[in-house]
Amino acid sequence: VNFDKIDHALREVCGLDPQAPLLVGVSGGPDSLCLMDILHRLGWKLVVAHFDHGLRPESGQEAGFVGAEAAKRGLDFVPGKMDVGAFARSERISVEEAARVGRYRFLFAQANLWGAQAVAVAHSADDQVETVLMHLLRGTGLTGLKGMAFRTIVTGWDPAMPLVRPFLDTWREEILGYCADRSLTPVMDASNLDTTYFRNRLRHELIPILEGYNPQIKAALWRTAHSLEGDFQDLESSLEEVFPSISCGEGKDYVRLDFAGLRNLSEGAQRRVLRKTAGKLRPGLQDIDSATVERALAFIKHPTLSKQMDWISSLYLMQEGEHFLMLEQGACPPQEDWPQIEEGCSLALDLPGQVKVGDGWRLESALVRAGDKAQINDCSRDEAFLDADLLTLPLEVRPRMAGDRFKPLGMDGHSIKLSDFFINFHLPRRARQGWPLVCSGPEIAWVPRYRSGHSFRIGEKTRLLVHLRLLKDPSPGHDS
Amino acid sequence: VNFDKIDHALREVCGLDPQAPLLVGVSGGPDSLCLMDILHRLGWKLVVAHFDHGLRPESGQEAGFVGAEAAKRGLDFVPGKMDVGAFARSERISVEEAARVGRYRFLFAQANLWGAQAVAVAHSADDQVETVLMHLLRGTGLTGLKGMAFRTIVTGWDPAMPLVRPFLDTWREEILGYCADRSLTPVMDASNLDTTYFRNRLRHELIPILEGYNPQIKAALWRTAHSLEGDFQDLESSLEEVFPSISCGEGKDYVRLDFAGLRNLSEGAQRRVLRKTAGKLRPGLQDIDSATVERALAFIKHPTLSKQMDWISSLYLMQEGEHFLMLEQGACPPQEDWPQIEEGCSLALDLPGQVKVGDGWRLESALVRAGDKAQINDCSRDEAFLDADLLTLPLEVRPRMAGDRFKPLGMDGHSIKLSDFFINFHLPRRARQGWPLVCSGPEIAWVPRYRSGHSFRIGEKTRLLVHLRLLKDPSPGHDS
Repeated sequence: VNFDKIDHALREVCGLDPQAPLLVGVSGGPDSLCLMDILHRLGWKLVVAHFDHGLRPESGQEAGFVGAEAAKRGLDFVPGKMDVGAFARSERISVEEAARVGRYRFLFAQANLWGAQAVAVAHSADDQVETVLMHLLRGTGLTGLKGMAFRTIVTGWDPAMPLVRPFLDTWREEILGYCADRSLTPVMDASNLDTTYFRNRLRHELIPILEGYNPQIKAALWRTAHSLEGDFQDLESSLEEVFPSISCGEGKDYVRLDFAGLRNLSEGAQRRVLRKTAGKLRPGLQDIDSATVERALAFIKHPTLSKQMDWISSLYLMQEGEHFLMLEQGACPPQEDWPQIEEGCSLALDLPGQVKVGDGWRLESALVRAGDKAQINDCSRDEAFLDADLLTLPLEVRPRMAGDRFKPLGMDGHSIKLSDFFINFHLPRRARQGWPLVCSGPEIAWVPRYRSGHSFRIGEKTRLLVHLRLLKDPSPGHDS
Repeated sequence: VNFDKIDHALREVCGLDPQAPLLVGVSGGPDSLCLMDILHRLGWKLVVAHFDHGLRPESGQEAGFVGAEAAKRGLDFVPGKMDVGAFARSERISVEEAARVGRYRFLFAQANLWGAQAVAVAHSADDQVETVLMHLLRGTGLTGLKGMAFRTIVTGWDPAMPLVRPFLDTWREEILGYCADRSLTPVMDASNLDTTYFRNRLRHELIPILEGYNPQIKAALWRTAHSLEGDFQDLESSLEEVFPSISCGEGKDYVRLDFAGLRNLSEGAQRRVLRKTAGKLRPGLQDIDSATVERALAFIKHPTLSKQMDWISSLYLMQEGEHFLMLEQGACPPQEDWPQIEEGCSLALDLPGQVKVGDGWRLESALVRAGDKAQINDCSRDEAFLDADLLTLPLEVRPRMAGDRFKPLGMDGHSIKLSDFFINFHLPRRARQGWPLVCSGPEIAWVPRYRSGHSFRIGEKTRLLVHLRLLKDPSPGHDS
């Protein structure tokens, strides 16, 4: 092991300050024992932390061993212990996952307590190669293939405390050689408890087979991961730029995006947005496998009839009107601020006049002279111009009724079920029942925000126009 | 095999027009025979092309078989033949590479002759998975891991004719099932001659082993490649935006980039620029392995003492002044337009006055009153202001001489060898011998474009300034 290389990795790649304390996780295995020894010899200010998973009878002895090794070097030592089995049962997660969660919670909590600048762990270049292979075999994209990073912030563990891996380009062989040279006597490494079985199969069975195809396969895979990490960083940067432009609000159990904006992104960008969004709701959600991501992409392309999809571990995808939502099962994202009117209600809209349609919303009507084409063409989705002579006054504002039909402008006078119109024009499902309709006698004259009626369209002979507007009071609590 | 899926792939994914002719490469193996049959049944306008590599005694019969199958369907048939062994010897490339080059040259030439819209080949989903694994084992980045594309332009083969792969998501099993159902009797597929041995090992040995880790590994690897293709496209788009901003000209045997601009890019972007640049010089240069790319990255970070590196297959990397060059061995990129002066030459520069320093270049001097600080601070690299009272007039303009030393401004009057100055300040090696120096008696007063001399700096007591300028005539042929 080259001391200069490690010191350089610590300072330049991991971005650490030699004057500030560093918490190092030490299982007592060769990797972490070697890391502790080297960091100490390089003069870094260490806090040695050991987590006893309590899964094997000898684990207590191992904690004692690490404590003794720390004491020998005059280093602060923090032992931690947990009944991982019980934790796994109570959280309904696998023992491996429980061990991982418990260990990292402990390390980050202690790092904060001791005012450490980072948590250092001893993942080696071999661990990197095995991680990449593990992801590859399971099915992954760039996120998995890039492997681990020298320095990373895992928002789910701690949004401010970095996790660093100064041994990421040091091979196990070098580490074992170092331990032998310095007469370090590591215990069996129990820190890789998670995935131990699968990892061992890779290490002892698959990698030797791959070396039959390329004796340098480990170095090749390491470089692949390293190069993909660079690509990943560049794509992350562009994601950081794009995301705000399609974000339409989020809460602890939902994220709302602009559906059209999402669809306009490249497939690659859509995948990245999905992963980022899932990460917001489930910081612990480890890399989503590629099949799952592709299912979401298919949903974005063609939402199901129900506009909803049970996606992954109680996360749902949903189309609601012009929005794409990712939400926890049972989450009820705040209703958008919609105009609504109560069932059975019927309001007369005088000309000129106005009626209230829900919280701060109102519909207004006014009579104007025909002539200003520009005004009509430029009108917003919350305005409509109709031919006054064709309307039965006063207009009526009411919610939908069973059997409602509508002749939307631009469909050649073709009449369709209002329910189909709502579906085709993407009215949010939750908004449909109370959506205010402006009616002229028995006929729907305007579906505010969506379409005016064909029968009342403006023509050559139109003399007078009814100008309808959907308006929102800018009162506190009602800001859009 | 699902006909609708293939037709969709042809139209939507490969972007083909059913009305325009399509050239399909048919070896006679199951994949290509099946593709020809399906394309024909779907009503596409086919030209069937077969390339006889002349490497096996039975290859003539195979050509006859493909011709007969085309005739049976009433399709145009173009046979091609080449002594691939001889071609390999004459080009000093491997037989596999020669077969590949010969075959694609033939296919693209015929596609152009027949006015085809594209060359279609029968690479299957299995081929995709094997390709990805092959790249992975060899060591690759995103470029290799993304595998093949449904539609691609290979500039080296033909900058305008796309290569399409409508079977890219169809599995070999489906293809063999189709052949059996329709009683198609393919010959052994010889089109995958290249890499056959390695491919066969992957197919029959490695993939079954990987299926022991994940029975769905083939589908997983396919999706990985598909997802990486999306990432690749996004990164390519941003590369297309970045490249022009750092490009400083190119010829058939060199590409010149702005070194500072290149260094300012992320590592990932540097890798992409390197691959793109290599692709410009060697359209045939297949994916560069990651170790080679990393060597170039290291050179960009710290150019060697000789400022030059033998990189890959007679391509060199070079730092020349402020430029990074990739060039063929022996290439002589056009000298930049530099001011130059002949060896042994000595010119008197009067005040005011001017002297010629090479093709269209001149040095001018003028006397100005001290006072206007802004002018001095804003002066370009091709201007200098010196204290007139400290200079020996007339100034002398001459090239370097053995033993020249220089006290650059900003180095506290420290004197260094002019040769070291040239190196430190990145004067292009080829420009150094004839670079014009403005001297005051025995001392260098200004190295135009680089630094003025400490001894002649402007101070509190300066009354009069000599304003020196390096100028270029905007004459035809001398545009910068």
